[in-house]
Amino acid sequence: MGNKLWGGRFVGNTDPIMEKFNASIAYDQRMWDADIRGSKAYVKALEKAKLVTTEEMNHIVQGLNQISEEWSQGVFVIKPGDEDIHTANERRLTELIGAPAGKLHTGRSRNDQVVTDMRLWLRDSISTLTKNALQLISSMVERAAAEIDVLFPGYTHMQRAQPIRWSHWILSHAVALSRDVDRLKEIKKRANLLPLGSGAIAGTPFDIDRELLRKVEFLFWASLCLTHLSKMAEDLMLYSTKEFSFITLSDAYSTGSSLMPQKKNADSLELIRSKAGRVFGSCAGFMMTLKGLPSTYNKDLQEDKEAMFDCYDTVDAVLQVTTGVMSTLKINQSVMEAALSPDMLATDLAYYLVRKGMPFRDAHGVSGKAVFAAESKNIALNQLTVEDLRALCPLFESDVSSVWDYRSSVEQYSAPGGTAESSVAAQVEHLRNWMKEQTQ
Amino acid sequence: MGNKLWGGRFVGNTDPIMEKFNASIAYDQRMWDADIRGSKAYVKALEKAKLVTTEEMNHIVQGLNQISEEWSQGVFVIKPGDEDIHTANERRLTELIGAPAGKLHTGRSRNDQVVTDMRLWLRDSISTLTKNALQLISSMVERAAAEIDVLFPGYTHMQRAQPIRWSHWILSHAVALSRDVDRLKEIKKRANLLPLGSGAIAGTPFDIDRELLRKVEFLFWASLCLTHLSKMAEDLMLYSTKEFSFITLSDAYSTGSSLMPQKKNADSLELIRSKAGRVFGSCAGFMMTLKGLPSTYNKDLQEDKEAMFDCYDTVDAVLQVTTGVMSTLKINQSVMEAALSPDMLATDLAYYLVRKGMPFRDAHGVSGKAVFAAESKNIALNQLTVEDLRALCPLFESDVSSVWDYRSSVEQYSAPGGTAESSVAAQVEHLRNWMKEQTQ
Amino acid sequence: MGNKLWGGRFVGNTDPIMEKFNASIAYDQRMWDADIRGSKAYVKALEKAKLVTTEEMNHIVQGLNQISEEWSQGVFVIKPGDEDIHTANERRLTELIGAPAGKLHTGRSRNDQVVTDMRLWLRDSISTLTKNALQLISSMVERAAAEIDVLFPGYTHMQRAQPIRWSHWILSHAVALSRDVDRLKEIKKRANLLPLGSGAIAGTPFDIDRELLRKVEFLFWASLCLTHLSKMAEDLMLYSTKEFSFITLSDAYSTGSSLMPQKKNADSLELIRSKAGRVFGSCAGFMMTLKGLPSTYNKDLQEDKEAMFDCYDTVDAVLQVTTGVMSTLKINQSVMEAALSPDMLATDLAYYLVRKGMPFRDAHGVSGKAVFAAESKNIALNQLTVEDLRALCPLFESDVSSVWDYRSSVEQYSAPGGTAESSVAAQVEHLRNWMKEQTQ
Amino acid sequence: MGNKLWGGRFVGNTDPIMEKFNASIAYDQRMWDADIRGSKAYVKALEKAKLVTTEEMNHIVQGLNQISEEWSQGVFVIKPGDEDIHTANERRLTELIGAPAGKLHTGRSRNDQVVTDMRLWLRDSISTLTKNALQLISSMVERAAAEIDVLFPGYTHMQRAQPIRWSHWILSHAVALSRDVDRLKEIKKRANLLPLGSGAIAGTPFDIDRELLRKVEFLFWASLCLTHLSKMAEDLMLYSTKEFSFITLSDAYSTGSSLMPQKKNADSLELIRSKAGRVFGSCAGFMMTLKGLPSTYNKDLQEDKEAMFDCYDTVDAVLQVTTGVMSTLKINQSVMEAALSPDMLATDLAYYLVRKGMPFRDAHGVSGKAVFAAESKNIALNQLTVEDLRALCPLFESDVSSVWDYRSSVEQYSAPGGTAESSVAAQVEHLRNWMKEQTQ
Repeated sequence: MGNKLWGGRFVGNTDPIMEKFNASIAYDQRMWDADIRGSKAYVKALEKAKLVTTEEMNHIVQGLNQISEEWSQGVFVIKPGDEDIHTANERRLTELIGAPAGKLHTGRSRNDQVVTDMRLWLRDSISTLTKNALQLISSMVERAAAEIDVLFPGYTHMQRAQPIRWSHWILSHAVALSRDVDRLKEIKKRANLLPLGSGAIAGTPFDIDRELLRKVEFLFWASLCLTHLSKMAEDLMLYSTKEFSFITLSDAYSTGSSLMPQKKNADSLELIRSKAGRVFGSCAGFMMTLKGLPSTYNKDLQEDKEAMFDCYDTVDAVLQVTTGVMSTLKINQSVMEAALSPDMLATDLAYYLVRKGMPFRDAHGVSGKAVFAAESKNIALNQLTVEDLRALCPLFESDVSSVWDYRSSVEQYSAPGGTAESSVAAQVEHLRNWMKEQTQ
Repeated sequence: MGNKLWGGRFVGNTDPIMEKFNASIAYDQRMWDADIRGSKAYVKALEKAKLVTTEEMNHIVQGLNQISEEWSQGVFVIKPGDEDIHTANERRLTELIGAPAGKLHTGRSRNDQVVTDMRLWLRDSISTLTKNALQLISSMVERAAAEIDVLFPGYTHMQRAQPIRWSHWILSHAVALSRDVDRLKEIKKRANLLPLGSGAIAGTPFDIDRELLRKVEFLFWASLCLTHLSKMAEDLMLYSTKEFSFITLSDAYSTGSSLMPQKKNADSLELIRSKAGRVFGSCAGFMMTLKGLPSTYNKDLQEDKEAMFDCYDTVDAVLQVTTGVMSTLKINQSVMEAALSPDMLATDLAYYLVRKGMPFRDAHGVSGKAVFAAESKNIALNQLTVEDLRALCPLFESDVSSVWDYRSSVEQYSAPGGTAESSVAAQVEHLRNWMKEQTQ
Repeated sequence: MGNKLWGGRFVGNTDPIMEKFNASIAYDQRMWDADIRGSKAYVKALEKAKLVTTEEMNHIVQGLNQISEEWSQGVFVIKPGDEDIHTANERRLTELIGAPAGKLHTGRSRNDQVVTDMRLWLRDSISTLTKNALQLISSMVERAAAEIDVLFPGYTHMQRAQPIRWSHWILSHAVALSRDVDRLKEIKKRANLLPLGSGAIAGTPFDIDRELLRKVEFLFWASLCLTHLSKMAEDLMLYSTKEFSFITLSDAYSTGSSLMPQKKNADSLELIRSKAGRVFGSCAGFMMTLKGLPSTYNKDLQEDKEAMFDCYDTVDAVLQVTTGVMSTLKINQSVMEAALSPDMLATDLAYYLVRKGMPFRDAHGVSGKAVFAAESKNIALNQLTVEDLRALCPLFESDVSSVWDYRSSVEQYSAPGGTAESSVAAQVEHLRNWMKEQTQ
Repeated sequence: MGNKLWGGRFVGNTDPIMEKFNASIAYDQRMWDADIRGSKAYVKALEKAKLVTTEEMNHIVQGLNQISEEWSQGVFVIKPGDEDIHTANERRLTELIGAPAGKLHTGRSRNDQVVTDMRLWLRDSISTLTKNALQLISSMVERAAAEIDVLFPGYTHMQRAQPIRWSHWILSHAVALSRDVDRLKEIKKRANLLPLGSGAIAGTPFDIDRELLRKVEFLFWASLCLTHLSKMAEDLMLYSTKEFSFITLSDAYSTGSSLMPQKKNADSLELIRSKAGRVFGSCAGFMMTLKGLPSTYNKDLQEDKEAMFDCYDTVDAVLQVTTGVMSTLKINQSVMEAALSPDMLATDLAYYLVRKGMPFRDAHGVSGKAVFAAESKNIALNQLTVEDLRALCPLFESDVSSVWDYRSSVEQYSAPGGTAESSVAAQVEHLRNWMKEQTQ
């Protein structure tokens, strides 16, 4: 009971299961570094305010440095009664330097300390995630630059739609990730704001809400980011099936089967896909915990930490594994290009008629009939003769043959975000510049 | 089959259940106004680009105006085959003005149209929600200004903690709402960005992702906003129990019981609290729908609209009802102030000792013992004699009596966000200014 | 105010937005039939208990019959003040038969009525869903029986694993659905239990909890059932890609693209897949609404109905559309069988060695090396010569050629649930019998 | 690479982050006991089938016993490459007994092993949870029996409704818990069914689905059970506020504040309430992971274990802490009874009129007017004179005084589930008998 901060008026004993249930040291010890850095900054402020002497400050800083050393060496010993990382470090400081340790907590509630530590931890975590995300984006952008000439089918509804550049596909995901980084930056900016007050309630209900908001936003950010990656993983999984055979994952990101010797499974992609569920679960769980809580602090809020830590660890690992997958997979260019087929130019066929003066809605109808005619004859769309086509619409002439070129087709879309080589190259450039800004 | 946009190559019939399953007209008809406004803007662009003549444009605009009239009068007739609002309006336009109607869709896919309509709808919706939220904040701020003198217990863990001003409680929620409005503004800013491209895939995968993001952010915003309000509702529900009796809801926001004649239930508050679940459910459902989808457009995404509409309607109603509740409830000042008790000044008692030179941790212990002593004697904390107190710590002197004043206690916290009158008044001023900025 | 059941002591007016917020008539009117049937049963009980005379009972029943008629004809007029279906029907009954209408509610609270109506509605709904699910299972089982000879690749991790029967795939989903039906039956059984009591609290807190449980279980059941169907839809979507080309959906369950004339999209499957998210969202939202509510009745619980109705409607439609999809799709047997490749027999190759006395773990290693050797030589696994194989392991002999037969491979698994023809046929028989039991 | 089960055809190296991402040993090592028990049963079956000799079996069993010993002593050393508990135990067995270790896995895939281990683990876990739940129910039932005489207000909508017995409140939660136990038993029954097959796909897709179902049902069960307990905790939190003061938690289940010496917070109850969110989050996350997965095994399913383990640990702790809370809290009988007030008998006043022949709807109106009259006069409802009452309705006579008795009021409800002493006692007896059945 002795070292409990609130032991004054209590006479009963705590149930050991309750003690464990209540304690957070098992998971919040990972904030040891943030806790020590926060205390070092705080004692300097106390010295400036003449609430501790310079000598006391030096003792305290020395003690904190030693504790830091113990944690990094893995020799810090957690003792019974250390219910959280803050209590543990304070207890150890008292052992090391005695009485002056008590002065470190002048005017600082445990709640203030938790808030500061979480903010420091979150700031570091966001930096790491940003760095990892940028590394992923960078490898995608460079890959897109290098493989800009490769065409393959663009899909909607999982059906072949129009020819696109492989780089266009890569960049669509890189751009989504760059937006995730932008949003993460906004959360970080908010985490840098200083908390106003002190004490549990009379000064700070405004801050408790703000802290919560930031955590909830981080959890939701993680869900969104992994939902994006689940989408990319799903595409890649399709592309790596035997049936598509567009890409081959590196062995480093595949596993085999203990039963079937020929199997090579894209486990890395499946794990990436699955983590969107896990992280969203943490977000959903915490939102549900918040629902209907009265305002100010309630112990329910202790659920924040495990959710935050697990989300961080998960996103951290997913970003790194995805970087590995994206930088080592091999594309099978010939298969990709062989998957293009003339019917994917049916829209271009309609545009041909539009250029001859037909309204699009009608041209679409004629082109649809051409597709149907080719299917009925069991031939490719570009194997219909000009006569076949003229039977459907007299506007067709021999120059229709110019339609059947995949490269010309993708070059038509030269607006920003289009599939033309110039558009894709511009997007690459745009992202390279954006990345430079991020690292400044 | 006739008027289906994609009917060209299809020969079978659609199953009627499938047709209904596929159709969105039942719920997307509410976007009729956005659809017509979007088309009017589009035809003007077409005329500028000389893709329609001025005369054709005039015909089209006239036709659209008439359709708009029909919708507002409630006489627009939806016909079989009108699978969505866009098809319905286009079908009607053709009936009204014939051939030129077809030209309206030059270079515009249905997907482009859906995106534009949703953006217009969302912009309007965000404006309405912002207006409603500001009205709620305004009534809270003015109430806080008017009732600044009322003290009552601040709670943490649902236990009486320290005396605070009633206005301080109000403002803590008003500030949370003002942050919600700030975030909503960010979403609106993003909704104002123009979509880049055209076509289903070759130009716009970047945009599909951006649209989705905005929707998902709106759904999450709604969840967060209602989670805030669920917290405020929970506080108010406590305050309106017989046991607390701090507030009395207006009859306009209460209902009775069909069984128990004496009951007056705070149904409005319970409904407010419950809606956080509903709206979060929509967000969770849509996130789950997105998980693992391949990129670009998949029909699964059609789930967005009902989720968006229901969230909007719900938040809209909740904000208005909450405004009603907050502006009509009556406070029972004497009960609120009678709920303050000397033990809520135990922290102040500790600070008294700190001012006499004792470290806070020790002072906290002494104060805790004083609380325990008073409880053992079954008297109030301020009824302990100076002798009683000196038995616990010799630093106590007769000036300890100055501690037992609730008003002095709240005046101690004069930092921004504090409970001092000046702090609360400053917060009122801050919010009034912030509101002015919003409406400019 | 006049006809509100709880109007006695209220003096203020209700805010019209609050009135709408509070009212459930917009969605609970669909229970009109259950409400009338419940009242008819109740008045008969009252007559038996001599609380109404036979003549009064007859009047009431006649009035209720007329109301029922009005609802079925679509001419029932909802009036302002009809806040729910129960109030509406009671108000109408009073208009029709006057005073005796009041006697219908002797000893019955509105809450009792809601509970009874929901139970009747749920019972009917479960019957309909069961019927629809059985129809789906039936069409799957008959299809499995008819196409038992078709082989195609079984997949794990979306990679070709081992040859299986197409019927085996169908039945794996039919069995999952049959378990869903079994679980639905359990919920129905519980819905048939009579509620104990009467009154809002003193008799029935046990029942409120039981009712809630049943609803929550129904919502979760719906989520699970649609999660199953999302899995089946995902498989079918893969099979219907150009790259797999195993199946072709009927035009009745496909849609085209307003832009790309050649597209034929499996919209039905995408909608089926998406609905798992929607229904889970309803379940999640209601669970979140329940979290932390105090016991007995709170208005928050009013959220149950819309969630229940939407889940029912969704599952109802999904089951019917899936039945349509499954009974009309065409399989492309030659493509399916051409997709089998010798490497899918690598496990069989390992078993060959096991039969020659080698432990499986070692045999698996040898077989893996054979796969690698074939890949290196760029030939099929069965094109390795006996010499090639003996270089890896001396146990290989010329009889290894017997391994390369897909039909023999599937016939090996003759345990219940296996791929052998006899196992599949037994499963068909088992499900046919199970279905017979369901309809008795 | 050496000891990976699927190493045969792989030539690249695995990324260490991928390796960690893929590995489950960090959390699945807790199944070490289930894994060893499963292997011991399996080797006995192999010996019976003459696939290993008796001597080999004895060696294997001895080796397994030693591994078991190492785990219980905490000296088992996990080595790099031990990706899961199955690989770790198999690796260790090979170290201990050499070659025969390989025979243990004849005809058993790793997947079979995982399934068996999880089933054994789940069976044990369900037994423990059942035992803990029964202990909680038992302490509640015995408390209800002992304190059957205590009356206090029953609440609906958090407003005082009718007098009830404190035991009635306890039992309403005990009954809900008993239903949770019943449902858990159903899940256990299903977990006892033997898996059919062997191998990854050709024999067992039916079982993969069944396993999943059971896990999902367990996660949902945990959510429901903790949602129940969140409700009970919410009630108790209300009852333990200063304002209600119905109960006092034992110090063992309370904590203080590091800032405010007088605070005693019901942290245990807040933690109980919060865990409903956490556990639901795990369920939601896993459901989302499942959505849209193709059938058979995908690595995504690896998310099951951490979800299951965390839910189990959480429910296990919550049940024990709740038992502690419920068996040590003190009730403040005099405060509880003082909280009863005559207006809570307004329903009884209406029934008085019903007994005099007035229809309930009218009687309810009269009683409401009486409540209003008393409020206007600022007196208690039972202080209205007979004349006051007769002014509202001539049926009132002097015997109306008999209404104002709380004990008579609760005795009116003598149906099963009612508040009469006999009903409550019968419920106690019913639960005692039910508990006896559970432990047989």
